[in-house]
Amino acid sequence: MAADPETTATNPTRMEDLVSLCARRGLIFQSSEIYGGINGFWDYGPLGVELKNNLKAFWWQRVVREREDVEGVDSAIVAHPRTWEASGHVEHFSDPMVDCRACKKRFRADQLDDIGPCPSREGTSEHDLTPARHFNLMLRTFIGASEEAADTAYLRAETCQSIFTDFRRIRETSRHKIPFGIAQIGKAFRNEINPRNFTFRSREFEQAELEYFVHPSERERWFEYWLDERQRFHRDLGFAPERLRMRPHEPDELAHYAKAAADVEYLFPFGWQEIEGIHDRGDWDLTRHSEYAGRDLGVTDEETKEKFVPMVIETSVGIDRTTLALLCDAFEVEELADGESRNVLRLHPVVAPIKAAVLPLSKKLSEPARRIAAELRRHWNVFYDESGNIGRRYRRQDEVGTPFCITWDFESEDDGQVTLRERDSMQQERISADGLVAHLRRRLEGAGGSEAAR
Amino acid sequence: MAADPETTATNPTRMEDLVSLCARRGLIFQSSEIYGGINGFWDYGPLGVELKNNLKAFWWQRVVREREDVEGVDSAIVAHPRTWEASGHVEHFSDPMVDCRACKKRFRADQLDDIGPCPSREGTSEHDLTPARHFNLMLRTFIGASEEAADTAYLRAETCQSIFTDFRRIRETSRHKIPFGIAQIGKAFRNEINPRNFTFRSREFEQAELEYFVHPSERERWFEYWLDERQRFHRDLGFAPERLRMRPHEPDELAHYAKAAADVEYLFPFGWQEIEGIHDRGDWDLTRHSEYAGRDLGVTDEETKEKFVPMVIETSVGIDRTTLALLCDAFEVEELADGESRNVLRLHPVVAPIKAAVLPLSKKLSEPARRIAAELRRHWNVFYDESGNIGRRYRRQDEVGTPFCITWDFESEDDGQVTLRERDSMQQERISADGLVAHLRRRLEGAGGSEAAR
Repeated sequence: MAADPETTATNPTRMEDLVSLCARRGLIFQSSEIYGGINGFWDYGPLGVELKNNLKAFWWQRVVREREDVEGVDSAIVAHPRTWEASGHVEHFSDPMVDCRACKKRFRADQLDDIGPCPSREGTSEHDLTPARHFNLMLRTFIGASEEAADTAYLRAETCQSIFTDFRRIRETSRHKIPFGIAQIGKAFRNEINPRNFTFRSREFEQAELEYFVHPSERERWFEYWLDERQRFHRDLGFAPERLRMRPHEPDELAHYAKAAADVEYLFPFGWQEIEGIHDRGDWDLTRHSEYAGRDLGVTDEETKEKFVPMVIETSVGIDRTTLALLCDAFEVEELADGESRNVLRLHPVVAPIKAAVLPLSKKLSEPARRIAAELRRHWNVFYDESGNIGRRYRRQDEVGTPFCITWDFESEDDGQVTLRERDSMQQERISADGLVAHLRRRLEGAGGSEAAR
Repeated sequence: MAADPETTATNPTRMEDLVSLCARRGLIFQSSEIYGGINGFWDYGPLGVELKNNLKAFWWQRVVREREDVEGVDSAIVAHPRTWEASGHVEHFSDPMVDCRACKKRFRADQLDDIGPCPSREGTSEHDLTPARHFNLMLRTFIGASEEAADTAYLRAETCQSIFTDFRRIRETSRHKIPFGIAQIGKAFRNEINPRNFTFRSREFEQAELEYFVHPSERERWFEYWLDERQRFHRDLGFAPERLRMRPHEPDELAHYAKAAADVEYLFPFGWQEIEGIHDRGDWDLTRHSEYAGRDLGVTDEETKEKFVPMVIETSVGIDRTTLALLCDAFEVEELADGESRNVLRLHPVVAPIKAAVLPLSKKLSEPARRIAAELRRHWNVFYDESGNIGRRYRRQDEVGTPFCITWDFESEDDGQVTLRERDSMQQERISADGLVAHLRRRLEGAGGSEAAR
């Protein structure tokens, strides 16, 4: 822990080890592997889906369910095409690209440093590049029975736009006054030219976004509030403080609609990178959609009768990025006293895919052990494993971040006690099988995890 | 309850009332409403997303977490295009369509009974139809920096195909022997020509699919097993038995790959319709993907050394359809003794969007009432409402299916008791505020709901 965080974290071998562990244990692997994969798309296996779902449930619990002032929504991935004209995506959501006339490859015009020689040109190995052209990053599709241009639609590039188009309906049906927020978790798509860094930059990804609508006079106060609140969220996920930081945007980094912005950054093995953005989007979105839809999306203060367009403070989590950050932060190859080493994922119980593993010391003890597993399964995601030696079974659970292992042995039959082994310390204690649920509840959910820890 | 279920359920007014309630209370409404909507796409508002998420959580708890023999997965919506060649979708997943040469409208060739007169032809009002042509129902998109045909990809038309392409990776990493299953919840897309019946037939929808892999000699046994198991699931959701049935497919209805199939059907106001399908898919999928990927997806029995391709029993729930069925089944306009009527959604607590509402009798009592709401919110989704008369607030909760209302009144200050009102019977009882969590836990989660009921 005394090592410099930048040095430790930017060790490339460590990232390879993690990627390999993720494939070997079925956490995350390339989509369509048997067809050679598809660049920028990933599948979450049995343990990966639990990890990601736990993160989403924790966010939903904190941001939506525990708050009186936030409502959830789940909108369609395909929205009306006018949505993306109003938002500016059709016109502006593009990267400048150049093509090589010889090899037909395409590159980002702002990333030409490392594109290598052209394989199709003799004499000179340089690419024969066209001038830069803008290339829209939205994924296009076609809806309806006809093949006319009017039926072009886009897969959403961000989940927030439908929050703006649904704003009036949700405000009216939920009878909220300003300030209040609307939150959504869902898939979004961007045709990234160079997907890279494992799941960090992919073409299909999941966002958890909150759009919080405030009176213009209160925007700065709420921006500050959400900065604090979102830092607390990431701290509560158990991130090492030295690998987490809040980086305010410089004025020249701000998006055209943004008045202020800050990124929550995590120190990945490949450097500091954004896992969440907090943006003061002003009244840009509601004003544009009012204009394009010909509908007034403004509100009237019931007391003062003042009419105004609310300002929007947005907090936008990359669920895949945060999942990856959790894995990077938790992963350790630990040298043990006996000269051996073990892989361990020191995941916070709230996100750990499996909360407890039940392991009979011998297959002969499977009946009572299965009974315990079935009881625990009513409360948490629990794994049962009866094959192989017990040390090896402990290691397999350490490697996927299971906080507790429960062993039923031959003495358990007589004294009604089981061995509870803790992942991080590897310490073991004997506790009564009858008190197991209460004991685990205290240790899994006690530390701020609340009931989202399942 | 004595009325004939077909007569009661096919009352069209009732469906209109439900659709209007869904919009008015923000359960489900048209996507991109402010732009005039987009045909076949729907958004779930604050209460709708909770209802749908509860259904998904209940399925995941039952099918994945409570079972030792099923693993979950969450794969990308965009898969390698070869996936859809192997599955037969590129070639066969189409409807026969005809176009009118005059008005340019397109119709399904097998649904020409009710297409009306042609508005563009004088003299004859009949359409001038082309011969039938096949129209593929998959949504197409384009991936990568180039615009060449090689980069065409499809939005998945069903979630199961990636279960088959990931089969080997998941089997190996989870170390399962046959029989075992892989389950997934996620979005799928079909370019339906005529989206209709509210959310029943839409273009973007969510599936919850289980693919259960068995030895060829055991396929009939497992098909029967899953028929029973899935009926139990729907019964446990509280559907009225007379509006739920299992309908085996006739031999001429079977898909080309299917050996046997049955639908779970619900009696919607628009008739009996499928909400889940149970299919014996044989070895079609694994064999085709083995062939197209050039990878052996067969397995070897460790004891007998027999090599075989597992047979697949599939259970496939339409999440949106089942959500709609839950709403139809729960919705009632009840005539009360005093001559008034109330809207009530008699939803099972496991799926009810809000489990309890906390209502102070007067705004002066908001502090202790909010304290109770905050405590209950640690366990369930809880709503707080202090405005309007108490009878009106009860009615608003009835209409969205909240099982319990808790009222804090002026006596509560003295005796530490609150009024607990039950949605269906409207009966009220006084209970101790201290025992409220335990009392609600018993009544919300006691009846088979387990801990998924949050």
